[in-house]
Amino acid sequence: MVFKHYNPDELVHGKRMEDWLRFSVCYWHTFRGVGADPFGQPTINRSWEDGTNSVENAKQRLRIAFRFMNLLGIKFWTFHDRDIAPEGATLEETNRNLDELTDLALNLQKEYGIKLLWATCNLFSAAKFANGAASNPDAHVVAYAGAQVKKGLEIAKKLGAENFVFWGGREGYHSILNTQISTELRNMANFFKMVVAYKEKIGFTGQLLIEPKPKEPSKHQYDYDAMTVIGFLKTYELDKHFKLNIEPNHTTLAGHGYEHDVVLASEFDMLGSIDANTGSPDLGWDTDQFPMDVKSCTLIMLAVIKKGGLNPGGLNFDAKVRRESTTVRDMFIAHIGAMDTMARGLKGAIKIIQDGYFEDCLKKRYSSFSSGIGAKISGGTASLEELEDYIKKNGEPTLQTGQQEHYESMLNAYI
Amino acid sequence: MVFKHYNPDELVHGKRMEDWLRFSVCYWHTFRGVGADPFGQPTINRSWEDGTNSVENAKQRLRIAFRFMNLLGIKFWTFHDRDIAPEGATLEETNRNLDELTDLALNLQKEYGIKLLWATCNLFSAAKFANGAASNPDAHVVAYAGAQVKKGLEIAKKLGAENFVFWGGREGYHSILNTQISTELRNMANFFKMVVAYKEKIGFTGQLLIEPKPKEPSKHQYDYDAMTVIGFLKTYELDKHFKLNIEPNHTTLAGHGYEHDVVLASEFDMLGSIDANTGSPDLGWDTDQFPMDVKSCTLIMLAVIKKGGLNPGGLNFDAKVRRESTTVRDMFIAHIGAMDTMARGLKGAIKIIQDGYFEDCLKKRYSSFSSGIGAKISGGTASLEELEDYIKKNGEPTLQTGQQEHYESMLNAYI
Amino acid sequence: MVFKHYNPDELVHGKRMEDWLRFSVCYWHTFRGVGADPFGQPTINRSWEDGTNSVENAKQRLRIAFRFMNLLGIKFWTFHDRDIAPEGATLEETNRNLDELTDLALNLQKEYGIKLLWATCNLFSAAKFANGAASNPDAHVVAYAGAQVKKGLEIAKKLGAENFVFWGGREGYHSILNTQISTELRNMANFFKMVVAYKEKIGFTGQLLIEPKPKEPSKHQYDYDAMTVIGFLKTYELDKHFKLNIEPNHTTLAGHGYEHDVVLASEFDMLGSIDANTGSPDLGWDTDQFPMDVKSCTLIMLAVIKKGGLNPGGLNFDAKVRRESTTVRDMFIAHIGAMDTMARGLKGAIKIIQDGYFEDCLKKRYSSFSSGIGAKISGGTASLEELEDYIKKNGEPTLQTGQQEHYESMLNAYI
Amino acid sequence: MVFKHYNPDELVHGKRMEDWLRFSVCYWHTFRGVGADPFGQPTINRSWEDGTNSVENAKQRLRIAFRFMNLLGIKFWTFHDRDIAPEGATLEETNRNLDELTDLALNLQKEYGIKLLWATCNLFSAAKFANGAASNPDAHVVAYAGAQVKKGLEIAKKLGAENFVFWGGREGYHSILNTQISTELRNMANFFKMVVAYKEKIGFTGQLLIEPKPKEPSKHQYDYDAMTVIGFLKTYELDKHFKLNIEPNHTTLAGHGYEHDVVLASEFDMLGSIDANTGSPDLGWDTDQFPMDVKSCTLIMLAVIKKGGLNPGGLNFDAKVRRESTTVRDMFIAHIGAMDTMARGLKGAIKIIQDGYFEDCLKKRYSSFSSGIGAKISGGTASLEELEDYIKKNGEPTLQTGQQEHYESMLNAYI
Repeated sequence: MVFKHYNPDELVHGKRMEDWLRFSVCYWHTFRGVGADPFGQPTINRSWEDGTNSVENAKQRLRIAFRFMNLLGIKFWTFHDRDIAPEGATLEETNRNLDELTDLALNLQKEYGIKLLWATCNLFSAAKFANGAASNPDAHVVAYAGAQVKKGLEIAKKLGAENFVFWGGREGYHSILNTQISTELRNMANFFKMVVAYKEKIGFTGQLLIEPKPKEPSKHQYDYDAMTVIGFLKTYELDKHFKLNIEPNHTTLAGHGYEHDVVLASEFDMLGSIDANTGSPDLGWDTDQFPMDVKSCTLIMLAVIKKGGLNPGGLNFDAKVRRESTTVRDMFIAHIGAMDTMARGLKGAIKIIQDGYFEDCLKKRYSSFSSGIGAKISGGTASLEELEDYIKKNGEPTLQTGQQEHYESMLNAYI
Repeated sequence: MVFKHYNPDELVHGKRMEDWLRFSVCYWHTFRGVGADPFGQPTINRSWEDGTNSVENAKQRLRIAFRFMNLLGIKFWTFHDRDIAPEGATLEETNRNLDELTDLALNLQKEYGIKLLWATCNLFSAAKFANGAASNPDAHVVAYAGAQVKKGLEIAKKLGAENFVFWGGREGYHSILNTQISTELRNMANFFKMVVAYKEKIGFTGQLLIEPKPKEPSKHQYDYDAMTVIGFLKTYELDKHFKLNIEPNHTTLAGHGYEHDVVLASEFDMLGSIDANTGSPDLGWDTDQFPMDVKSCTLIMLAVIKKGGLNPGGLNFDAKVRRESTTVRDMFIAHIGAMDTMARGLKGAIKIIQDGYFEDCLKKRYSSFSSGIGAKISGGTASLEELEDYIKKNGEPTLQTGQQEHYESMLNAYI
Repeated sequence: MVFKHYNPDELVHGKRMEDWLRFSVCYWHTFRGVGADPFGQPTINRSWEDGTNSVENAKQRLRIAFRFMNLLGIKFWTFHDRDIAPEGATLEETNRNLDELTDLALNLQKEYGIKLLWATCNLFSAAKFANGAASNPDAHVVAYAGAQVKKGLEIAKKLGAENFVFWGGREGYHSILNTQISTELRNMANFFKMVVAYKEKIGFTGQLLIEPKPKEPSKHQYDYDAMTVIGFLKTYELDKHFKLNIEPNHTTLAGHGYEHDVVLASEFDMLGSIDANTGSPDLGWDTDQFPMDVKSCTLIMLAVIKKGGLNPGGLNFDAKVRRESTTVRDMFIAHIGAMDTMARGLKGAIKIIQDGYFEDCLKKRYSSFSSGIGAKISGGTASLEELEDYIKKNGEPTLQTGQQEHYESMLNAYI
Repeated sequence: MVFKHYNPDELVHGKRMEDWLRFSVCYWHTFRGVGADPFGQPTINRSWEDGTNSVENAKQRLRIAFRFMNLLGIKFWTFHDRDIAPEGATLEETNRNLDELTDLALNLQKEYGIKLLWATCNLFSAAKFANGAASNPDAHVVAYAGAQVKKGLEIAKKLGAENFVFWGGREGYHSILNTQISTELRNMANFFKMVVAYKEKIGFTGQLLIEPKPKEPSKHQYDYDAMTVIGFLKTYELDKHFKLNIEPNHTTLAGHGYEHDVVLASEFDMLGSIDANTGSPDLGWDTDQFPMDVKSCTLIMLAVIKKGGLNPGGLNFDAKVRRESTTVRDMFIAHIGAMDTMARGLKGAIKIIQDGYFEDCLKKRYSSFSSGIGAKISGGTASLEELEDYIKKNGEPTLQTGQQEHYESMLNAYI
């Protein structure tokens, strides 16, 4: 249980490794996960749990969590509001519980030098949200979601959250037959506008993020993938206020390659943060496994380095030990294994960047756009008539080899 | 081989059935398909083919096609430029062939009273387009694509095309390693801007359409699904000039339900036309089968009726007989079966609309948005503080049943 | 809430409709389901539940269940051992609970004239089974599974179960890295041999059934699909003792068409019973929805009629109301809707059989095997030399049309 | 273009690297592939092709192929009958062409010291096979397939093929509506029995292999996956005569993990040979890419080493350069990259084996089956009564951690 590759203080490509790899422990899986699945009861019993849903138990758990992060040397954490404090009978009671737990969290953050990468509101677990939160057909539920997010923003500010995430697991539909899509989307957009207004009002300066997922638990989720969310934000003129939190396990569920949404979001300058996890490509649901594949992590880190790092985003381990991995030792092994894998990915990506060979190949591939007709096309000043003239003068183009196998082989040299 | 349900002149819900069901025969599958697949040679030999790629053979084939449409009573057709006229050694020769064939097509259209639902350019079959057309890394290829589309718009105008479609089978990537996504997307957007400019210059009044498809032949296609294309159009300020041509077989390949993109595009007022076909949900590629499922077609027609019909769009049978269905009789049976299925769908959808029960259920489900806090939410005038106040006064919401099984049972009553 | 198509006493194709459609209510979904999902808490609270896990509550629930079945006119039920009686601290206590509840069940069965279609043991929910039951790497767990199944067979006998099902949700692996597949399969086979021995010893005469499922909860389940189970049974010489319980939602998860495993199992004379449900083809997990698609149900019933009915198997509604469908009314609507859909499927299938047209087409398609070289091939008496001689004499074969669209259109005439 | 990892003469784990990695060039993709796809025309023009389908061109191509293999240092090749020699107007002419080409092949094999890993018959490309070969509804086609396979076995013998493969791309169905599955399977089994008889008659000693694939081109293929084929072989008592040729790209299309069928086939002692390739997990069709993932290749080689090597099987590069990779240089790069990747896999697997740590962990995990009740279970001598007694004495089992993340991390140490 020692790191073989991750070394926080090592200076790589101009930054400490820790500053490239802004790792975060997620509270829900790692401290609230009990190993239940749709066909199975809980398998995980932590010694620090007293079996109650009390505020005292919540506090004890939080203290343990900070010790765990400290032992791992992880400097960020993330949580949902309902992870850290029990829900009460009324909103007021719930919020008092949140106040009490966030007081403690603030102290623990200071004590351990750990920061809040992002907070989020759980708008999907409670029965009331079964038909949606911001997109619920019942205005009463939308109102509740709004009240909950108001408090969420307040505690995010209190704890100095660097980001605030929305994941809309119930924003979507199970049956198109009973759904008015345009009503729901408009309400959801209005909801986000209220969020922006309140955020500005209270002076919360964290970055707002939306996390795409195509489905599960809903049959169709409105935030299907990166490009869908970008389309939604553009349509409702919200794109200046939000970026994306990309989870590769969601990307693959949407039918894309592992790194696609990270790269795409980055190219649209919409990449905010990353949920560092993985799924099994042969399974049709979210398994939230720890990322253990060096090649995939290299591609992710390559996109991260190209944009100069993720700050204020990070690499949040939205990952859970398997329900069969029941020991505390497994918790450590999983995080250490993933941190080492990401560190190998970082090192490989840096070598790729520093060698410059990949970049040279790409520049050469697109070089025809730096002059002549290419420059006019890429500059937006050409016309179809000019293109026709060009062909009449220059004749048919010839197919240039794409060299995919060459690129694949090159990549292997860095892994 | 007679219609059991389709009756073009029957007046239903205020229009002739034919005017609701603007069927179109696609030229590529039905007159250029030979039954080859990635593992098999051609199986289909039509008696009217002489085995050459000559202009004469092309003309003979076109005459047969119009007779076929006439026999079926279908009043629209669609084609790619390269379907109807052989490609020559130079662009000039190719365009001369197109002129000759479109002269004939114009005559045949008049003779038979058949109209051109839409034209499109084949920017994916020729070897030169292997790495893309508008998004190719080589400016020379982009130029060729532009020249080709220029001619495409001209012949569309000449033939009175009601729409003009772009399907970007090669606009995307096979490997993210050798691809600069943002360069390619920007070039593609610039390309579409040239299209709009030229269209307006020559006074072509057809509707421009983009047809989403997630993948195949490319590993990733930029026009992944309806929402992705909407996002692209918004990002590059092209959304006023384009609508969508939705193919359900592409929708299901993108991981959505059969009717999803038709409904979604319609709710965003971006539904232009429909490629009436289907796939096999257990297969991961485009099978372009004739639509034979009454329930699916009912849902499609329901969306169509709600928006008052598809005009100037239509229901284009972008479908091919199986490669084992080798006879001309199979060609007729397939179209007749599909037309009857769509007609059953139309009738069911009309019953649903006229009964009003579905609509009543939906109105009731969303009724909380017509007054009070709901009206403020849907009107965009609420704030998080007001929502919190509402909850403090009104307490927790209670979960309302979604009644999915009730909606599913209701639907069966109309099928 | 009345039946439009199902009429139990109507005589169709030589049997009462009820005898073709041996419907069964499943206890787990319909009486133990609470609407929880991997991202959500329970949504369903039945008025008859007192919130405890007591034997008294279990009894009250069972009485309600029989009243529910009686109201629906359903004559069969199915359960897992752990559904009906609470698990105790020891096997002995657990078994005493089972005794008490099965005493009541026996009385209720008599009172209402309801029979037990099948019983099964839940070998997947308890934490102890996380790594498998019969295929667990720990012999202690295998022993527990054996003890549990012993009791399961005893209560199945006591209640006159017509079948006994094994579904191996944890028999498989999550990671091939930590798994010895051949050890696990051999142990599983040995386990089934013990089952057969004990079944015969106590004189339980119900049919043993294995229910295939490819994955979920395990990454890979050994009982992947019908053909996989047949291969397993043949390999370990268990095929005389077991048949299959096919669930179409599992069939589609294995990548097959909805009806594939029902038809395949039937053709191998291995079809025992059917779990009448459906999934959503765009989702990668088991949704266990009520079957509401007339075409699919027609194909299922066609296979059932061809084999002369399912007896002693049946159509078990292994289906759950959506977690958003929270009312008792939804429970009724879901069952009634599904029963009506199956009844429409039955009627359509009977028409297909009685018309004989489908069968004639098929007979004609395969007619070349009734004489000459075809008869030798199908009789197993031909040789490659004879086949070569045949070709030398008769020349190349010509491709016969497969007429898929014709068959699809024909089917629509019966729906 | 030099090897970084593959070194044929290096002695590793008791064998020359070349003898562990029995690489084979496939003739169809590498020498007959032209880069066509369902949406695109050929992109690849090799300088040695004269554009005809003549016997002379076929000979020239074959000579080039042997030079290519020789340059790469690959000692095996594979082909379909129709790849190497043009099909004539009659079977007799076709067979004469085959004779001529196999005469040349025999000479080239001797000249270059290259052996035939396996031969196979193409029973899927020609139009006549559209509805199947051995499972065709028309006996005339079955006869043709038999005649073709007779010749195929003869040339396999002539060329000293170490194996003979059957891949049934058309053995299956497109529509269950027009298919009699049991008839087709019985005929297919009879066909294989004729093959066995003729093989023995002529004294061909190569291993017969069946290659599973779930679908594509057929909607459902009877040889779905490894376990399905094993079930088929057992059912028809053919299992002594056949082993499996596993292609991981087919394995993933069947919904399994990349290495699953290799491991499974090996555990059933049915692994004959491997088609070394890969797909893209986000695509639903066979892409036949060169294997470039070190981790996957390590798992494959681990299974290979555990069974002592593949001999007489091998690692056949059933892979094609992308249609955009149009140069001869790409052909070399692709093979070299894949050979290096497999060599890295081999070295990693050997380290895993030699360290013994993985094996020790596994042994420990299953250790309870070496004594006591576990030994009785695994030996097949326990009864349910004994298991119950065991639990009554020993109480409830406790869940042992499965340590998946530990195994995943360990694996990374060898990659």
